[in-house]
Amino acid sequence: MNAQIPHVVIVGGGFGGLEAAKALADAPVRITLIDAHNHHLFQPLLYQVATAALSAPDIAAPIRRILRSQKNVTVLLDRVSAVELDTRRLHLTGGPLHYDHLILAAGAINNYFGNNAWAKHAPGLKTLTDALDIRRRILLAFEAAEKEPDPARRAEWLTFAVIGGGPTGVELAGSIAEIARNTLARDFRNFDPRKTRVVLIEGGDRVLTSFTAQSSEAAAEQLRNIGVEIRFNARVTNIDETGVSFGDDKLIARTVLWGAGVRGAPLAETMGVPLDRAGRVLVEPDLSVPGHPEVSVVGDLAAAKQADGSFVPGVAQGAMQGGDLAAKNLLSRLAGRPTEAFVYNDKGSMATIGRKAAVAEIGALKLRGVLAWAMWLFIHILFLVGFRNRIAVLTEWAWAYFSYHRSARVIVSRSIEAPTSTLG
Amino acid sequence: MNAQIPHVVIVGGGFGGLEAAKALADAPVRITLIDAHNHHLFQPLLYQVATAALSAPDIAAPIRRILRSQKNVTVLLDRVSAVELDTRRLHLTGGPLHYDHLILAAGAINNYFGNNAWAKHAPGLKTLTDALDIRRRILLAFEAAEKEPDPARRAEWLTFAVIGGGPTGVELAGSIAEIARNTLARDFRNFDPRKTRVVLIEGGDRVLTSFTAQSSEAAAEQLRNIGVEIRFNARVTNIDETGVSFGDDKLIARTVLWGAGVRGAPLAETMGVPLDRAGRVLVEPDLSVPGHPEVSVVGDLAAAKQADGSFVPGVAQGAMQGGDLAAKNLLSRLAGRPTEAFVYNDKGSMATIGRKAAVAEIGALKLRGVLAWAMWLFIHILFLVGFRNRIAVLTEWAWAYFSYHRSARVIVSRSIEAPTSTLG
Repeated sequence: MNAQIPHVVIVGGGFGGLEAAKALADAPVRITLIDAHNHHLFQPLLYQVATAALSAPDIAAPIRRILRSQKNVTVLLDRVSAVELDTRRLHLTGGPLHYDHLILAAGAINNYFGNNAWAKHAPGLKTLTDALDIRRRILLAFEAAEKEPDPARRAEWLTFAVIGGGPTGVELAGSIAEIARNTLARDFRNFDPRKTRVVLIEGGDRVLTSFTAQSSEAAAEQLRNIGVEIRFNARVTNIDETGVSFGDDKLIARTVLWGAGVRGAPLAETMGVPLDRAGRVLVEPDLSVPGHPEVSVVGDLAAAKQADGSFVPGVAQGAMQGGDLAAKNLLSRLAGRPTEAFVYNDKGSMATIGRKAAVAEIGALKLRGVLAWAMWLFIHILFLVGFRNRIAVLTEWAWAYFSYHRSARVIVSRSIEAPTSTLG
Repeated sequence: MNAQIPHVVIVGGGFGGLEAAKALADAPVRITLIDAHNHHLFQPLLYQVATAALSAPDIAAPIRRILRSQKNVTVLLDRVSAVELDTRRLHLTGGPLHYDHLILAAGAINNYFGNNAWAKHAPGLKTLTDALDIRRRILLAFEAAEKEPDPARRAEWLTFAVIGGGPTGVELAGSIAEIARNTLARDFRNFDPRKTRVVLIEGGDRVLTSFTAQSSEAAAEQLRNIGVEIRFNARVTNIDETGVSFGDDKLIARTVLWGAGVRGAPLAETMGVPLDRAGRVLVEPDLSVPGHPEVSVVGDLAAAKQADGSFVPGVAQGAMQGGDLAAKNLLSRLAGRPTEAFVYNDKGSMATIGRKAAVAEIGALKLRGVLAWAMWLFIHILFLVGFRNRIAVLTEWAWAYFSYHRSARVIVSRSIEAPTSTLG
């Protein structure tokens, strides 16, 4: 390798890392992009893999394929266990790797707020493995119900609790309700899947708190229309294999899913720099780490304060814009020019609730129902990585729309242990 | 349940079990179909999931969805651990289940001929989990090669050994060679994937022994054309994580795949009836178990002797025809009529080697190359279960054909441990 050419290391092949790599396509640098997975994941559609509407490869594309034509990038499949800021080295499984410039885009993990024992009973949704695990749990619950002769215990299998009223929770709850009402309606002999209970549990007094109160109300109404119960102001005190506790009150549910929050990847803790309470790096306005202008943090791992005092939200747009700016600032530093502060351009937000049901806010424009849903479809197809994924997802969705079926109702796991029950 | 109506239990939702269930659609029986997986698997295309051409849901369909309209069938997801012929009971995880008539279609598992320790180093291809494991190993080997600075050790990662020259081995070897030559050609920076070695290891003196010598030779030639080495008359004496031994000789290969044989599912051993050396039940000409006319065995689990002394081959057609006959014989017994002997109608066989390369034999007609490949495509699409799967697979194949890409280059696993190597 040419020692004269600066070595840029990007950790993470998500929206932020990929955007940074692409923005450096013509730069006089050599880039190493490291990710623990071989694929870039289109996370906004991950809940559709979890609810059997899409297959895993539909929303994932190999990182090295995306960057195959960009000759200044080498992609490595590896785990970064630590960042040594002083020596400018990363710890990989095979040994240390030196960088001249570092862009950290390692993302977030599920946040159980100190109750890590809950993770086993209430999986969150961050990776493809998470999604396939959640899919397995949902489909196995209906299978267990079919085998359960006792009506009370069957009802426990047919109760699904989703914790957290943000986009992930809303989308999961809406999808499960639709599966029960439409997809599975005629598939079982010993119970009616339409008797399924889906309970969305929210700590505050409305869902989708990042939206306006008007959109929150519209989302709640659409959720209720498809049969989702919503519990507001609910403080979860415990989760075990039988359900969710709220102090003395308990909701009995054999399937509990977690959408209540995320925190920065643990890698951030190895740097010894100040983090916020959610484990995110408190970056300078130009996204660099305080005292280390050669290191930038973008996406879900960054706590980036805006001029108005708010933080950039942990969404794909924020990560992409951050990755782009980090790359530009890197080039400015190489050229001896001053760096720029990050100004997040909010292009709007949307969340889908079900068939023809969604909410969207783009500036002053607020949409709900069919129109929001159509816009959601259009934008998500548009931004899916790779022409092939777009075609595949379009086909799946068209098929699902007209047939009410879900294409990926397949349980794949190393050892399928059917839930135990008594059988006559 | 009405005790007057005979209870037919079918174990297995593969080609044999499904066909038996469908043939009993209008019969005055109640049917319970039990499978350990929630899906019917189109096994002839399983190697395409293993080699990243198709995604798992493309070749799998929920059994209860396939049978949703057949109201006399209840589908259960469960494992059958034993058959008690005397009491007419099955052991399920939840307790015993009584049957009046039993159709066993539990299929086959990989056969390591007593060397079960090899399974860990050389996975076989029977389930979706197997296929995703093999996909993971193939893709990770290329990732490890990219990180390996030592050329000799890199060559070990780029050597793939496939054991067994039957259809599975031929199809796997051909696909891996194509991935290396076409799909991955431009994706790596530290080596040329076209230097990949694929070695097909066969104990006899030709591949595809169930075909004529002429087709075997055509298949071998087409394999060599795409870069596969073939070792004939090779007796494997050991397999470990570094490769395959043949007495004193050893092929160093970090990825070894097993396609050398299958045996009947262990369930057969619980019945206490005579089995052949491959663990299959030696059935009567009408497919019933000797001394137990109420029990039939069909598909890969049955050793069914034909009038000419040969056994029915373990292929989809044999299972489907057997399932159909077992159902018909069951109805004959209910009506007090004599049962019929099974006469297998060989509709031909085919194996695909790669892009525009295949062999096919239909009666006296022998095809090779593009024509055999086109026929293979047509027939496999035609018999894929479910309209949606056909559309999805057609789309994937069309995309792969024109782009040379494979849609499912995604490693999904609970814990992705990147292979260790030293990194500068």
